[in-house]
Amino acid sequence: MKKNYVTTQDFTKEELLDIINLSINIKKNIKAGYHLNVLYHKTLGMIFEQASTRTRVSFETAMTQLGGHAQYLAPGQIQLGKHESMKDTAIVLSRLTDILMARVIEHKTIEELAHYATVPVINGMSDYNHPTQEMGDIITIFEHMPEGKRIEDCKVVFVGDCTQVCASLMMMITKMGGHFVHYGPKDFQLKEDYLKLAEENCKVSGGTYVVTEDPEVALKDADFIYTDVWYGLYESELPKEERMKIFYPKYQVNRDMISKCSPHVKFMHCLPATRGEEVTDEIMDDPNVSICFDEAENRLTAMRGLLVYFMGKMEETNAICKKNLGL
Amino acid sequence: MKKNYVTTQDFTKEELLDIINLSINIKKNIKAGYHLNVLYHKTLGMIFEQASTRTRVSFETAMTQLGGHAQYLAPGQIQLGKHESMKDTAIVLSRLTDILMARVIEHKTIEELAHYATVPVINGMSDYNHPTQEMGDIITIFEHMPEGKRIEDCKVVFVGDCTQVCASLMMMITKMGGHFVHYGPKDFQLKEDYLKLAEENCKVSGGTYVVTEDPEVALKDADFIYTDVWYGLYESELPKEERMKIFYPKYQVNRDMISKCSPHVKFMHCLPATRGEEVTDEIMDDPNVSICFDEAENRLTAMRGLLVYFMGKMEETNAICKKNLGL
Amino acid sequence: MKKNYVTTQDFTKEELLDIINLSINIKKNIKAGYHLNVLYHKTLGMIFEQASTRTRVSFETAMTQLGGHAQYLAPGQIQLGKHESMKDTAIVLSRLTDILMARVIEHKTIEELAHYATVPVINGMSDYNHPTQEMGDIITIFEHMPEGKRIEDCKVVFVGDCTQVCASLMMMITKMGGHFVHYGPKDFQLKEDYLKLAEENCKVSGGTYVVTEDPEVALKDADFIYTDVWYGLYESELPKEERMKIFYPKYQVNRDMISKCSPHVKFMHCLPATRGEEVTDEIMDDPNVSICFDEAENRLTAMRGLLVYFMGKMEETNAICKKNLGL
Repeated sequence: MKKNYVTTQDFTKEELLDIINLSINIKKNIKAGYHLNVLYHKTLGMIFEQASTRTRVSFETAMTQLGGHAQYLAPGQIQLGKHESMKDTAIVLSRLTDILMARVIEHKTIEELAHYATVPVINGMSDYNHPTQEMGDIITIFEHMPEGKRIEDCKVVFVGDCTQVCASLMMMITKMGGHFVHYGPKDFQLKEDYLKLAEENCKVSGGTYVVTEDPEVALKDADFIYTDVWYGLYESELPKEERMKIFYPKYQVNRDMISKCSPHVKFMHCLPATRGEEVTDEIMDDPNVSICFDEAENRLTAMRGLLVYFMGKMEETNAICKKNLGL
Repeated sequence: MKKNYVTTQDFTKEELLDIINLSINIKKNIKAGYHLNVLYHKTLGMIFEQASTRTRVSFETAMTQLGGHAQYLAPGQIQLGKHESMKDTAIVLSRLTDILMARVIEHKTIEELAHYATVPVINGMSDYNHPTQEMGDIITIFEHMPEGKRIEDCKVVFVGDCTQVCASLMMMITKMGGHFVHYGPKDFQLKEDYLKLAEENCKVSGGTYVVTEDPEVALKDADFIYTDVWYGLYESELPKEERMKIFYPKYQVNRDMISKCSPHVKFMHCLPATRGEEVTDEIMDDPNVSICFDEAENRLTAMRGLLVYFMGKMEETNAICKKNLGL
Repeated sequence: MKKNYVTTQDFTKEELLDIINLSINIKKNIKAGYHLNVLYHKTLGMIFEQASTRTRVSFETAMTQLGGHAQYLAPGQIQLGKHESMKDTAIVLSRLTDILMARVIEHKTIEELAHYATVPVINGMSDYNHPTQEMGDIITIFEHMPEGKRIEDCKVVFVGDCTQVCASLMMMITKMGGHFVHYGPKDFQLKEDYLKLAEENCKVSGGTYVVTEDPEVALKDADFIYTDVWYGLYESELPKEERMKIFYPKYQVNRDMISKCSPHVKFMHCLPATRGEEVTDEIMDDPNVSICFDEAENRLTAMRGLLVYFMGKMEETNAICKKNLGL
């Protein structure tokens, strides 16, 4: 079993499906009113180099629901690799907690932490990828699969800027054998290093990937339309006027864009959204199209599954869930 | 059942008495050494736009004692209505937690949060009112009721500046049918909008209210004397010299003022106190007069009752408590 | 039973051995997979006037493992003796929590808090001493005792600047009847007020103490070599160049220094370490010599023992542990 969840590229499709199914089992179990204590008295150390509401709240709620506790180490409260070597911090925290997660500024920080820590380490987002979001997203896609389709039949389109959420979605969809499209302006498209991974994944999975500025290519028969804000989280951000000039109106998810997709298309967004920029109120609030709040809830679904999986409790937990649910 | 606890004005006297009795039952149960797990594995999200020790610690201890967990979202860690619409934040947090509380700067923030959230929302103080303090205060009054008196017979006097604690005390006492007095200098008395509520409440309850600068009217036969610091929490604060000129010595709670009240009068303060300004050490530390630390403890008593009530666990909890206590 | 853990000087050797043995019992119990709930639903209030990772994480994990919860009151979130008198804060927090710990800037702050609080108070480090570190350190020494030796036979040498960790180690070792050496440059040696305590302790325990610049006297037959960073935490810190001039190379723990000690000598450090200054990578990473990460883990061992002891649960807990472990 792999110790760390730094990137989904380290995992096979089957391993990822294990985590997905485990997460869904736990969700059903809790929705049915059953309590789980598989992480009873366990401690998750949460290191945040940057503020985050969704990731922090999801992890903390997950630990409570599993019988354990999450410690919130806020930005500034712990400085990775500043006052002491990363190695020493990683070893000491491994002695005092049972599992760690970190939201980091630079991807190499999470890699180093995972390398030196003797307990499991989960990547809570870096400037390279966002694999817990990825897990919540694929669960949401499974839950809202068009009738009669499998993931291998789905066309999933990311619209707009190539953020780490875009990159992560690509990794997951191509790993699963689905059809991924990044629909965005030339200078804001997924770069070579990411496309090499898409290539590799598709070779194994039978999936496809396309990067395009052509709306016809991008939107036709799309099953899922996904977008994110139009400004990066890590670089010097573009002023509003400039980013509107680049992305608006072509890449805004609105009624017009949705009408060019499959009739059963669903809208996804990692949130927070800048309503009126990358998505209109009309689409975001349309109960027949928007699944972005189910997606937000599945951050929690994913966190529970990941915590249980990396704490080595998958089999035990699946057995409890199946017994409770009479499966 | 009402979903939110934004202001006690939304509740009947009977409903408030339900919460009071529930809170007292839980307190007795815990003091007797019984554990409660009625909020087992549940999560309270605590949003603080302003720092607060008492409110935060009370809520967090309450959740632990009830088998759940409170997440502390400190000022700056979550910004209501800044990076995303209040609606989106409210919906997302409702998906990730079981109940929310917020200490807000402007009252409309808590109203909006309560409106959009799909889980219960508790007001942890705004610039308009302080209803969890209100609940702890009325419990304290019930526990220290003069012999042979009912709440409808009590004269409760708030001395000093018309803070939101003053306003909240007025709402609760007039709702209960008691006799409320605000004894403060003309420019610092409860304003028309609040007095309209007092009027409405008294019409239903049979209570009375008076706003006065006259010490004779205010203090004669007073059962409870309540004060707060002499500077507002939200406006540009008066410098010490100016506020002393306005309130001192007339409105200081000292031996002289206490001697003009009922011989069994009790002293209350929401704390923190500026000893030597609005109250003397002598009164605050007098075990026969001061009940302000019992009052502080009843913040916790109130939080437990409110959490259980708004999580829909009143009947179950009352039943457990009565069984444990042999009632 | 003493209510507070402010300094080990308040305790007899026997009382300290009680806490040490209790801590070790709990550690064995948890390592063997048994759950303890002796602090079920209890709340520890953690007040930090200064940031700290190790102390905070240890206490928080300890409370989770014992069935309770630790509230983290970060620097700035609570200001002892600022907005209200220390007395009022201490009384109010005693009403809302079950036990308190504080990391303070000035030692008199923890003394006042302990004086006014009605619940137990644990000193999480002051400018005078660091008694929870002290407890973890003595447990580590007991676990790594040279074969055939008792604590009364051990020579424990602190190398470098007379920090509060140095002072605390001195108090514990002399209290236990061991042989303590502070090996450091003249102007950075333990001062008269501390040496008076060493004197008193040795009179009772039969231990010895020496303060010296002489490497021969210091290192010969040393069983444990302990060091800390070369800059104080509380005073205006020396620039790197100046502190190197004072301490380097004479007081650096390196292969050369270790070779002058007993062949079974162990290296300890309270961490964080400035590798390359007070200790070399070679020593810190030598599995035959360095026990500094076991020592870090024993912060947690100590916290659990202290929490259980001061919550009055020693006998009950020892009984549970012995039963679980078949002793």
